[in-house]
Amino acid sequence: MRVGPSQEEVRRHNLGTLLRYVHVHGATSRAELTSRLGLNRSTIGALTAELISAGLVSEAVPKQTRRAGRPSLVVRPESELVFAYALSIEVDRVRAARVGLGGRILEQHESRRPPGMGADEAVEPLARFVRAMRDRVPGGARCVGSGLAVAGMVRREDGMVRLAPTIGWVEEPVGAALRAELGGPDRLIVGNHADVCALAEHARGAAVGCDNVIYLYGDVGVGAGIVAGGRRVTGHGGYGGEVGHMVVNPYGRPCDCGSRGCWETEIGEHALLHLSGRGDRTGRDAVLAVVDAAVRGDSQAQHALRHVGDWIGLGVGNLVNIFNPEVVIFGGTLRDVYLVAAAQIRSRLNAVGLPACREHVRLRTPELGADAALIGAAELAFDHLLDDPLVS
Amino acid sequence: MRVGPSQEEVRRHNLGTLLRYVHVHGATSRAELTSRLGLNRSTIGALTAELISAGLVSEAVPKQTRRAGRPSLVVRPESELVFAYALSIEVDRVRAARVGLGGRILEQHESRRPPGMGADEAVEPLARFVRAMRDRVPGGARCVGSGLAVAGMVRREDGMVRLAPTIGWVEEPVGAALRAELGGPDRLIVGNHADVCALAEHARGAAVGCDNVIYLYGDVGVGAGIVAGGRRVTGHGGYGGEVGHMVVNPYGRPCDCGSRGCWETEIGEHALLHLSGRGDRTGRDAVLAVVDAAVRGDSQAQHALRHVGDWIGLGVGNLVNIFNPEVVIFGGTLRDVYLVAAAQIRSRLNAVGLPACREHVRLRTPELGADAALIGAAELAFDHLLDDPLVS
Repeated sequence: MRVGPSQEEVRRHNLGTLLRYVHVHGATSRAELTSRLGLNRSTIGALTAELISAGLVSEAVPKQTRRAGRPSLVVRPESELVFAYALSIEVDRVRAARVGLGGRILEQHESRRPPGMGADEAVEPLARFVRAMRDRVPGGARCVGSGLAVAGMVRREDGMVRLAPTIGWVEEPVGAALRAELGGPDRLIVGNHADVCALAEHARGAAVGCDNVIYLYGDVGVGAGIVAGGRRVTGHGGYGGEVGHMVVNPYGRPCDCGSRGCWETEIGEHALLHLSGRGDRTGRDAVLAVVDAAVRGDSQAQHALRHVGDWIGLGVGNLVNIFNPEVVIFGGTLRDVYLVAAAQIRSRLNAVGLPACREHVRLRTPELGADAALIGAAELAFDHLLDDPLVS
Repeated sequence: MRVGPSQEEVRRHNLGTLLRYVHVHGATSRAELTSRLGLNRSTIGALTAELISAGLVSEAVPKQTRRAGRPSLVVRPESELVFAYALSIEVDRVRAARVGLGGRILEQHESRRPPGMGADEAVEPLARFVRAMRDRVPGGARCVGSGLAVAGMVRREDGMVRLAPTIGWVEEPVGAALRAELGGPDRLIVGNHADVCALAEHARGAAVGCDNVIYLYGDVGVGAGIVAGGRRVTGHGGYGGEVGHMVVNPYGRPCDCGSRGCWETEIGEHALLHLSGRGDRTGRDAVLAVVDAAVRGDSQAQHALRHVGDWIGLGVGNLVNIFNPEVVIFGGTLRDVYLVAAAQIRSRLNAVGLPACREHVRLRTPELGADAALIGAAELAFDHLLDDPLVS
């Protein structure tokens, strides 16, 4: 029995699988690809040849080999020639990069985003960076699209930013504005900052090999990128992961969202700075100053970090009971808080988390640092190519 | 280019897709299958022929048709001939059924589970029911395996029940015990009660067509079955969905789990009965009595339901912020509470849920009633067949 378009579909699927493998794992020998992908040698050879002729990978004899006999050719992604533009709008800056296949940042730029800067104004420098990078793209290189990370709630279908309290935006059509500025036919996918950081850490950072991941990101607010069963949890419209607005203390402080006792009222920057006697300051440097002061013995800073650590542990316990993850990653300023409050966090997590839910969970800091947003934004753009490498 | 085993794999994948379609949707014309599955007519014909010869579907001329011309043949699952045993261990009873392909309950049995009954004792009547059903199976019928739902935390890999507080079990090897009792080569998959109910409501109940679903189940405790992006969220070991142990009131009542202020301390049966002045009673009938009393004007019962409804809304708001679901289903005794406290629940949900996260969420009662656990348990067993219909 023949089934219509199937053979071609399977070939494309296998091309995508091979390309995704070298995109994530980097240069890989044909021998390893054969064993990892469960395809036979001649198939791997044919798939590689096709990806080479599509300009997506290159193949070479390895520089050195410890084994006798003919060495297995090494397949690597064409990072210099196939790339995405990766863009990020954050609380205090905007960034733009050119990221090569394989997740390599080839070039990057940033500028400050002063408070009050609207969506149109934020989009303008990003578009300028992209135009400047376009001028320098080497001959023969190919752009597969653009990805934009925004620290806010992003509508999946069109990149409308519904709400970004820490940036000060409500219903800003950032996707449409950036598309208009960039011009041209390139695809643009917009995603939430914590979601794309989770994607990056899952693909090539602290959560490699883990199918159930919670990536927490804190600055003014607190959000999460969540991977369950190997796939991102983004919800119906793309707005999932708003863990900062999980109510954990219903008799607590009012939250900017209009509710009361949201997790971020207890663990966000404002709470930490206020408790440490620095209620007049804001920003990452101020949080780092509290952490430094605590390490130096400042008892008010230590008290603030104990309080925040305790509430972090409580909320993480809640998420662990809901998701039974293998790893929880603390990003943004939560990374610094975690480093000095780990014992407090673990202790409350152990009290709240059910033993079966928490028994295998590891608490980690990110491995990709600030690059995660750019690498993750590029992943949004690469996804299309990796699903079907021969797509135009 | 030929790719090793691909054509065969695709054929099997397409067989599974067709079989899953008629399993979920029931009798379907070839014309509709052609358009729904995106395969051409001859392929649908060939796939159907193969499923007929495997004894999995039958085909017939429809009884009546409104259109002129030759009517399209109707393909239906062989519900009488292909079946799974579906088993369920609940707080106060054990149940066993034979469920035909297509989700039809062909026969079912139940017996009471007195408090204190251990795992071995609970497994014994289930095995007895299965043996009795086996004796009556019509000639030529084929069992594809068994699924068991347990109201507790179930280890995915082997069906060990790690903790089932409402049943009173800790570390009970229920999967192994039942396999030993049943004997024979049949596969047995064990899952959590709320998870399998979610599966059933997602496939053929209140959440059909929804990819993001939260099914809440309440009796003594509160748990959830969660579907995100069309797939169950079960976590690393299978223990996800323990929303009843999300801390929502850290200065509240101690919980049986050892923590304090868990959601189920505010919305579980004990809280409702205690607040309504019926602290000496337990069970579903007692909850229904509170609901009835409130409808008749009993002010203490009304107060209790307002309190519980408010806390239900708070916790649902938290889950809506995390998952951005399309539908939340209230099962078990939460169904009855929801029916009289819907306004309270919606009001608090609207206060806690971010507008973008809650704007499309519908609140629903289950459509499958108590059958959900059996139909869902059968789905656990059918899954293997639907992934690859020609598997032996």
